[in-house]
Amino acid sequence: MTVSHEILQILENTAVATISTVLRQKGFNRVALHGPRAVTEGQKRIAGPAFTMRFVPAREDMTTALAVNGPTSPRAVLEKIPAGAVVVVDAMGLRSAGVFGDIISARMQMRGVAGLVTDGAIRDLVGMKKLEWPIWADGTTAPPSPSEFFCADTEVAVACGGVTIFPGDIVVADDDGAIVVPAAMAEAVATEAYEKDRFEEWVYDQVKGGALLDGLYPPNDATKERYAKEKQ
Amino acid sequence: MTVSHEILQILENTAVATISTVLRQKGFNRVALHGPRAVTEGQKRIAGPAFTMRFVPAREDMTTALAVNGPTSPRAVLEKIPAGAVVVVDAMGLRSAGVFGDIISARMQMRGVAGLVTDGAIRDLVGMKKLEWPIWADGTTAPPSPSEFFCADTEVAVACGGVTIFPGDIVVADDDGAIVVPAAMAEAVATEAYEKDRFEEWVYDQVKGGALLDGLYPPNDATKERYAKEKQ
Amino acid sequence: MTVSHEILQILENTAVATISTVLRQKGFNRVALHGPRAVTEGQKRIAGPAFTMRFVPAREDMTTALAVNGPTSPRAVLEKIPAGAVVVVDAMGLRSAGVFGDIISARMQMRGVAGLVTDGAIRDLVGMKKLEWPIWADGTTAPPSPSEFFCADTEVAVACGGVTIFPGDIVVADDDGAIVVPAAMAEAVATEAYEKDRFEEWVYDQVKGGALLDGLYPPNDATKERYAKEKQ
Amino acid sequence: MTVSHEILQILENTAVATISTVLRQKGFNRVALHGPRAVTEGQKRIAGPAFTMRFVPAREDMTTALAVNGPTSPRAVLEKIPAGAVVVVDAMGLRSAGVFGDIISARMQMRGVAGLVTDGAIRDLVGMKKLEWPIWADGTTAPPSPSEFFCADTEVAVACGGVTIFPGDIVVADDDGAIVVPAAMAEAVATEAYEKDRFEEWVYDQVKGGALLDGLYPPNDATKERYAKEKQ
Amino acid sequence: MTVSHEILQILENTAVATISTVLRQKGFNRVALHGPRAVTEGQKRIAGPAFTMRFVPAREDMTTALAVNGPTSPRAVLEKIPAGAVVVVDAMGLRSAGVFGDIISARMQMRGVAGLVTDGAIRDLVGMKKLEWPIWADGTTAPPSPSEFFCADTEVAVACGGVTIFPGDIVVADDDGAIVVPAAMAEAVATEAYEKDRFEEWVYDQVKGGALLDGLYPPNDATKERYAKEKQ
Amino acid sequence: MTVSHEILQILENTAVATISTVLRQKGFNRVALHGPRAVTEGQKRIAGPAFTMRFVPAREDMTTALAVNGPTSPRAVLEKIPAGAVVVVDAMGLRSAGVFGDIISARMQMRGVAGLVTDGAIRDLVGMKKLEWPIWADGTTAPPSPSEFFCADTEVAVACGGVTIFPGDIVVADDDGAIVVPAAMAEAVATEAYEKDRFEEWVYDQVKGGALLDGLYPPNDATKERYAKEKQ
Repeated sequence: MTVSHEILQILENTAVATISTVLRQKGFNRVALHGPRAVTEGQKRIAGPAFTMRFVPAREDMTTALAVNGPTSPRAVLEKIPAGAVVVVDAMGLRSAGVFGDIISARMQMRGVAGLVTDGAIRDLVGMKKLEWPIWADGTTAPPSPSEFFCADTEVAVACGGVTIFPGDIVVADDDGAIVVPAAMAEAVATEAYEKDRFEEWVYDQVKGGALLDGLYPPNDATKERYAKEKQ
Repeated sequence: MTVSHEILQILENTAVATISTVLRQKGFNRVALHGPRAVTEGQKRIAGPAFTMRFVPAREDMTTALAVNGPTSPRAVLEKIPAGAVVVVDAMGLRSAGVFGDIISARMQMRGVAGLVTDGAIRDLVGMKKLEWPIWADGTTAPPSPSEFFCADTEVAVACGGVTIFPGDIVVADDDGAIVVPAAMAEAVATEAYEKDRFEEWVYDQVKGGALLDGLYPPNDATKERYAKEKQ
Repeated sequence: MTVSHEILQILENTAVATISTVLRQKGFNRVALHGPRAVTEGQKRIAGPAFTMRFVPAREDMTTALAVNGPTSPRAVLEKIPAGAVVVVDAMGLRSAGVFGDIISARMQMRGVAGLVTDGAIRDLVGMKKLEWPIWADGTTAPPSPSEFFCADTEVAVACGGVTIFPGDIVVADDDGAIVVPAAMAEAVATEAYEKDRFEEWVYDQVKGGALLDGLYPPNDATKERYAKEKQ
Repeated sequence: MTVSHEILQILENTAVATISTVLRQKGFNRVALHGPRAVTEGQKRIAGPAFTMRFVPAREDMTTALAVNGPTSPRAVLEKIPAGAVVVVDAMGLRSAGVFGDIISARMQMRGVAGLVTDGAIRDLVGMKKLEWPIWADGTTAPPSPSEFFCADTEVAVACGGVTIFPGDIVVADDDGAIVVPAAMAEAVATEAYEKDRFEEWVYDQVKGGALLDGLYPPNDATKERYAKEKQ
Repeated sequence: MTVSHEILQILENTAVATISTVLRQKGFNRVALHGPRAVTEGQKRIAGPAFTMRFVPAREDMTTALAVNGPTSPRAVLEKIPAGAVVVVDAMGLRSAGVFGDIISARMQMRGVAGLVTDGAIRDLVGMKKLEWPIWADGTTAPPSPSEFFCADTEVAVACGGVTIFPGDIVVADDDGAIVVPAAMAEAVATEAYEKDRFEEWVYDQVKGGALLDGLYPPNDATKERYAKEKQ
Repeated sequence: MTVSHEILQILENTAVATISTVLRQKGFNRVALHGPRAVTEGQKRIAGPAFTMRFVPAREDMTTALAVNGPTSPRAVLEKIPAGAVVVVDAMGLRSAGVFGDIISARMQMRGVAGLVTDGAIRDLVGMKKLEWPIWADGTTAPPSPSEFFCADTEVAVACGGVTIFPGDIVVADDDGAIVVPAAMAEAVATEAYEKDRFEEWVYDQVKGGALLDGLYPPNDATKERYAKEKQ
């Protein structure tokens, strides 16, 4: 199932917090990732189909050579990641090594990959920030990936930050964190959340101007009418 | 028990670290909250009487409607919070939803509420920061409050960050975190801590100027005399 | 075993992430500290021999007087720390009190101590940052050290951030965290890691310029030759 | 809302695991307590209305005298607990002191209280076991209750083991743990779960006798018919 | 790679602790699972090829029907598990639902499956114990599997208890826990560990008889000679 | 400071829970160890002077040979432990390897060592239990000690289960856990706690016989008099 560029654009212009509320109203509570945080506060929001990578713990018979150069190694995999994708790395929440450093990330960025979301840590923070490539991770550490894990699979269902993500699901991430929008729901969620987000921005301004919440948020009919009028 | 505006002013000009030391000298070790951190480093220190809110986990028979609009819902409660109060939310340390977002917070700010302290997370980070309203929380996340909890009670003793806070206790918070000053001790603590804080600033400058700690900190009589003279 | 100033200089100019990779290639996986993070992002990298302090939990028969002024108290100890040393405090990962505040730290800085690395927290964040003295810690908190622990020993093997550090081992720390280089390996690691670090910077630039990783990183002979030529 | 003795009897004869499945089928996922375990494996299953106690952390101005003898102290409260009730203690998951010891528990037992469920620990394990009074707790420890907490409220909504329990909700507990059945659902859940439990016992025997699961569990019409016949 | 029945028999007669020591001597430190414990102390040791199942978190669009009856559901999978296999369930360490209950387990037992190892919890403890089928899990809980997760894959590399297990690796488990022996090493490890285990039993008896450890353990030549003689 | 055999005998006949209460009344709250639990429920209570061992994390330049045979290795140390001592191992709470197995423990038992208390795990559970030697640990695991740590020091102040223990402090342990009685307080605590323990046993029987707590526990004068009379 492919989600159109238009839908992705709308999601990219919609707050993750609002998408979370809309998904909740549709019965989805297990979609917000716990762990990944914006590495640079204020980095741009991203929305794209997930390209998933599943890491498992290092074992002494998985030689570094295999982990670094094998068929599921980051080096081998990254040339297959489509432009616009969000790379999602299930690192089992382990933060004792970095899933990627600045060189691998630079190459992903050059290929047009939208960004990285992981429940693990990254390394090479200085080089990472210089890229100005959006990353959501659970901290920074020095050791290289093969110290702690290797990539066992790509493009399978993964558990990242306590949430299941299927390849092709839409991942949206901003300063409030990352969320998965199941591919089949992307269109319905995008439109509704975008509208809700605009309305909440208007409410925010009303409140800053002195308005009470009663009747405003959630809105009664008068409020809805006033909003409709002002937004014309 | 009401604490005077003068005392609150003194506490607002006293480092939480120093208040912690003075409370410890008076036998109080269980007063510093673990979890809440300044959302914006360098945001202004606050001191005010606690207005407490006790959250409990969401349950499927607590409808969103009830959580969002019931008598203890944030919307219903916030118009009762007195200006100058510090809102203290016991979120049981759960960080999987935000206790408040930017709209509720904007309204609190408009009402003159001094700030928010919670052992949970907040949401809408961008909007929250735009308010320039001081918040201490344990992280940021996307899901809305009803996803994870609802407010069961207000103005009762709560456990926040491992510390018991009674309504009306004075909460002081700065870049080192938040602390509770039991209302009955506020006056004694304020004066002593303020003086100690001034002295420590002077010591800091002495040390930066090359002084040894011996005899200076803790001070011997000569140091005390010198400090008294210089401070005239 | 003393490590020369030249070696320390080289390490100070080498990324901790790269040192981690080189140590791993030499069979060392248990050398990166988990917990200590740079208190100020972008603070200068440090490299120096460890001066270790071992904290144990407070007990009611360890009076504050003894903890604050006894033979292993920070005040007594700090005048013995050699210039250039990195103070390593094993705080057992406890973050409920600050191991040091700004006055003790100011004195260490004045004595020429290179910096502080601890798996505990610090306090007096504002004063600490004003020092512009590099600190790696696991957070900030208000309570003073004697609330939670006291220094039982100095210059013994300690466990900090899950890693054993012997007095005199070299500790290097930057934005990716802190690592211990066993003293006996410092020379071998320094040279190799420095060279590798330079090479990786060159690779990073190549990738930013559009190069593929294949043959570049890890490098094949052609790449090695080209790098050698360009670096002349 | 009062739940009849008959319903409680049925629940007492129904596995908590099965009740959990039925509640889930009715849309309730946040009802199983995480933390409380049977202190003695094989102790009898209990089912009764919750009598809730809310503990908050000890603070130095809550004297032991007040904690031990005040109006919400266990001593004062326990004579008010009705026979048949399940005492639910929200200990905030703290296991560093025992919520109750053997003397308080003996008195509860004498009063006909059905049992104790807590996300904290107990103390006096030897005396506790001698009572043969069913207890679900998260471990055993030596320190007395006032070391760590005191009872702030009784008969309010509490959070125990991550679940909200209102006074009068039905708590059922066995070797698989404890669950809350909202009072309003007790009747519907009891009947359905009891029947399901009987059916699953029959299935278990079929499987032990060599049956395949296909068509048996979940059952097809033939299985249902056969079960109905055999159970006559 | 298939491991012979003889090798499995030898491993089944060798303590996991001793296998751990031998694997460590061969350079393998990441092979002991953290989390799974024997559900019944003293249950028989098992050794068999791993049949792996990978669970991921529940999501609201994974209907119970799919989780319970889909192609990777336990029901569908279990008829494919070969006799003698050890079922290894990667439950991501989540203990809020049981991976299996007594009915699924009874069927596995009937099929000749050697036992179950999981870093999650089980449910139906009473029925589970009645089976006398060996299980290693991280606790017991009431909720059914679909409450928290579903099986995404079988017979892939999994992370269980912090250790990577490939399908066909040999898993050995006893009262000290579970360990993975990479299939390629099973023969070498089995023989060496079995011999070491016998020797350690002999040492244990010597020590109980009053012998000192010096020269005995690790053994000097005299000890080795004496052991060889006695064991004839 | 040496504590007499008589005092140790009294402590050995006094519940740890009661000792905890008495220490608390004397101002000591940081004396109960969190983590160590009785390996065999009902094993005999022990009381003896602490012989402390301090473990630190394994590092690749600490060869197994050194860890196993060096001057602070268990083998070298154990012949120096005096009969009657309680061995206290600070394992930093790490449970990924066993601090000791059955052979080392058997030798300690033969030497008359009273028992073992550790915040780490043990291994060789079957052999350990066969010894019937009292052990308090935080679980069981397979890997041998050098996998994770080595002994850096003996007979120094250690942190075990969050509590500082000095060599020679008295450690008492039973089914409720382990506690440290500072050597200087042993006599005062022993007498008082023993008497209190006897009184509480009497209270327990009264309550089982139907008595109310009011006036009984804590006792009023009439109760004290009655107890004095009955105990003659």
